[in-house]
Amino acid sequence: MNRLLVVGSDAAGMSAALQAMRTAERRGRPLEVVALERTAHTSYSACGIPYWIAGDVPASADLVARTPARLRESGIDLHTGVAATGLDLERGVVTARAEDGDRDVEFGYDQLLLATGSEPIVPAWARTAAGTLVPRVLPVKTIADGDRWLDVLVSDGAPRRCVVVGGGYIGLEMAEALLRRGLEVTLVTLDDEVMASLDPDMGSRVGDQLTAAGLKVLTRTPVTGLTTGPDGAVAAVVAEGLALPADVVVLGMGVTPATAVGADGGLEIGARGGYLPDPTQRVAEGVWAAGDCCEVIDRITGGRVYLPLGTHANKQGRVAGTVIAGGRARYEGALGTAITRFVGGGVHVEIARVGPSSAQAQAAGLDVASSVTEGRTASGYMPEASPMSTKVLAERGSRRLLGLQIVGGPGAGKRVDTAAAAIWGGCTVDDLASMDLAYAPPFATVWEAVQLAARRLADRL
Amino acid sequence: MNRLLVVGSDAAGMSAALQAMRTAERRGRPLEVVALERTAHTSYSACGIPYWIAGDVPASADLVARTPARLRESGIDLHTGVAATGLDLERGVVTARAEDGDRDVEFGYDQLLLATGSEPIVPAWARTAAGTLVPRVLPVKTIADGDRWLDVLVSDGAPRRCVVVGGGYIGLEMAEALLRRGLEVTLVTLDDEVMASLDPDMGSRVGDQLTAAGLKVLTRTPVTGLTTGPDGAVAAVVAEGLALPADVVVLGMGVTPATAVGADGGLEIGARGGYLPDPTQRVAEGVWAAGDCCEVIDRITGGRVYLPLGTHANKQGRVAGTVIAGGRARYEGALGTAITRFVGGGVHVEIARVGPSSAQAQAAGLDVASSVTEGRTASGYMPEASPMSTKVLAERGSRRLLGLQIVGGPGAGKRVDTAAAAIWGGCTVDDLASMDLAYAPPFATVWEAVQLAARRLADRL
Repeated sequence: MNRLLVVGSDAAGMSAALQAMRTAERRGRPLEVVALERTAHTSYSACGIPYWIAGDVPASADLVARTPARLRESGIDLHTGVAATGLDLERGVVTARAEDGDRDVEFGYDQLLLATGSEPIVPAWARTAAGTLVPRVLPVKTIADGDRWLDVLVSDGAPRRCVVVGGGYIGLEMAEALLRRGLEVTLVTLDDEVMASLDPDMGSRVGDQLTAAGLKVLTRTPVTGLTTGPDGAVAAVVAEGLALPADVVVLGMGVTPATAVGADGGLEIGARGGYLPDPTQRVAEGVWAAGDCCEVIDRITGGRVYLPLGTHANKQGRVAGTVIAGGRARYEGALGTAITRFVGGGVHVEIARVGPSSAQAQAAGLDVASSVTEGRTASGYMPEASPMSTKVLAERGSRRLLGLQIVGGPGAGKRVDTAAAAIWGGCTVDDLASMDLAYAPPFATVWEAVQLAARRLADRL
Repeated sequence: MNRLLVVGSDAAGMSAALQAMRTAERRGRPLEVVALERTAHTSYSACGIPYWIAGDVPASADLVARTPARLRESGIDLHTGVAATGLDLERGVVTARAEDGDRDVEFGYDQLLLATGSEPIVPAWARTAAGTLVPRVLPVKTIADGDRWLDVLVSDGAPRRCVVVGGGYIGLEMAEALLRRGLEVTLVTLDDEVMASLDPDMGSRVGDQLTAAGLKVLTRTPVTGLTTGPDGAVAAVVAEGLALPADVVVLGMGVTPATAVGADGGLEIGARGGYLPDPTQRVAEGVWAAGDCCEVIDRITGGRVYLPLGTHANKQGRVAGTVIAGGRARYEGALGTAITRFVGGGVHVEIARVGPSSAQAQAAGLDVASSVTEGRTASGYMPEASPMSTKVLAERGSRRLLGLQIVGGPGAGKRVDTAAAAIWGGCTVDDLASMDLAYAPPFATVWEAVQLAARRLADRL
């Protein structure tokens, strides 16, 4: 029987494995699936960890979509606690080592799927001389990280002050979690504004909301070091000559693709550190890659981008699984659609984007025009109405819709999908302004805020 | 100076007037605008009246976007309390009568815009022998209607039991308002299910929610008469041999286009009772029509439909105003996108649709396939997660996305815009399943519910 070896048993890997088995069975060509997983956990929602830490999610088990036991019941020969260490494409062999093992073991394959995900970025200042993380300086990536966070938050001498390093998605979500847990939160970012994936004028609106919620927000502030206390744990974060007292520190500086295994096998690695799959997720003869270890094609610019997000991982896994089993599928690329929120300290702000920022569009050679409009999420006379800033980006000349950025109250964020669908369908900014969107007083203004913004830009183009 | 006469001074009429004045000024050809309005009120949100009656909106003034005074300040020669009674296209004259007048007055025009809106459907059983409405049997259309409702609700002997006749948007919204006001609500509809603009399997989900909220819901139940009390006011609604006790009755049976003036002038009236404008909203040489008095082109089927809704009125008014002043604009048609909610009795259900129902698609000769998927509005482990049923409609063969229907909890409804944009962009059901939509645990499942539904249908097509 044909053997598929899957390295990494989270969203991409297990979506692929299950899809491959289903497709193979339908085609009457059963497939043996062997899967390796470095940790003890499979198919869990990393995006849910901040909400588990916040207390919204009772237990880590709630974050697990498919347990090892369930995956084994599905017929996958799953090895947890086994880390791949090398790849020999010639021989069709992955070498791996068990946590408790003292030597490498070889796993042969007919087809290989690399779904090794990503690793948090850990700067030098976060490490001890021995190379381990300074105690109470914690990333937010794995279930083990979440366990460590909950240990710290409920331990004796529970932390009072926290510094969040990084103003992106994880930074904001952890700032929310820790503010709601009662900590004093300082957020530090190197960028001009928080949420640097937005244009700065939109990021500054987010920053204002965080400040209104009681956070201390420091932008353009490089962290250069830490001080530690007598117990060896962090005592302060040093940034631009300031020592910011910190009982605990969030490492929210982003992630990089985990591609050591493929690099060992000689696979090509892109400028952003990820694998470079074709639209079927193939990276070499008999080898596929999917999820956070891959770069993806940006449909708008045509260039490669790095978008470590569960939605792409699941879609790519499904494509890879279908193709591995002999079916037909294509991953159609991404638009950089993303959403988050910050709720706490009397503030509820939703933040969403699709398409390149103005700077990214310019860098891609696009002649971009944009306009920000202040609207509302519901008719002004409704108690639900809350402010919503919408920035629309379009290309001069072609009038093609390029992107949308939203910062607003409850109900604002998911409107970004309207623009995502419009961009996917190749719409112009005029199309977005004209289209028939849903209106009723609790849900929108009679000129929907997104369309008001599109119309303003269309009138100016 | 060129004179534009506008008949009807609500959304369509005043959008057109102001847009025409702006456009004319920009083109250096100022325009005289005369406007007639039958009532005392201009540019108000009829959609907001149920929320004013519910108590969400403090006063009718909050529903008014532009007061008569403000319109006059804008330079419009506005005559309120003046009803148009006839039209002579040959002479370019509208005859009208003031509320307090005893004879018709003539208003000449160079260009005419008919924006006379709609009238509530009033069945024979709702009228007294004298032809007036039976006391306490009330439509929900004008600010005067709302005033009457508030009089009834706060009067001595405040009503305890109410019957809502009609299971569409106004019916549901008034059922919500009156339930939240503490009344016992019985909803009666002639249709197989409430919300007959949805497929019956989706409408039945709405009906179940209304029942769960404590409403008595009677479907397939024709109302045949009323009984009245000694004071002449309604005492019960008679339906299928049942006498349903009612201290007050909601007339929620829909509206028809108000086209008496144009019909008097010999303008063509469509099968649905509305004017038949071209894409510039022109109905005859020098004559335009916009808003609820018009039929519109359904972009999906290409046929004419009647969609009395503020969004279309505003868009059409803007187009008409631009064109009247010599500019270029086109109304691009509608998709039948609509949304509402029912909140009360421990229930929060959002209801939205775009595109034809299955029956409407079949009637238009489309080979329609559909599928209902049960999803969630947020990741299952989040406190925000609530159930959401999504029905996707697509055309066999072409795989073109035709429609989407949603019945679900908070945050479900506005997702319909994603499908509206996709349909506007000409997307297939496969496109909808593949596109890059926003994901984070408080906002969506990792396979967004709408995409899950699209994928299921795509797999089956």
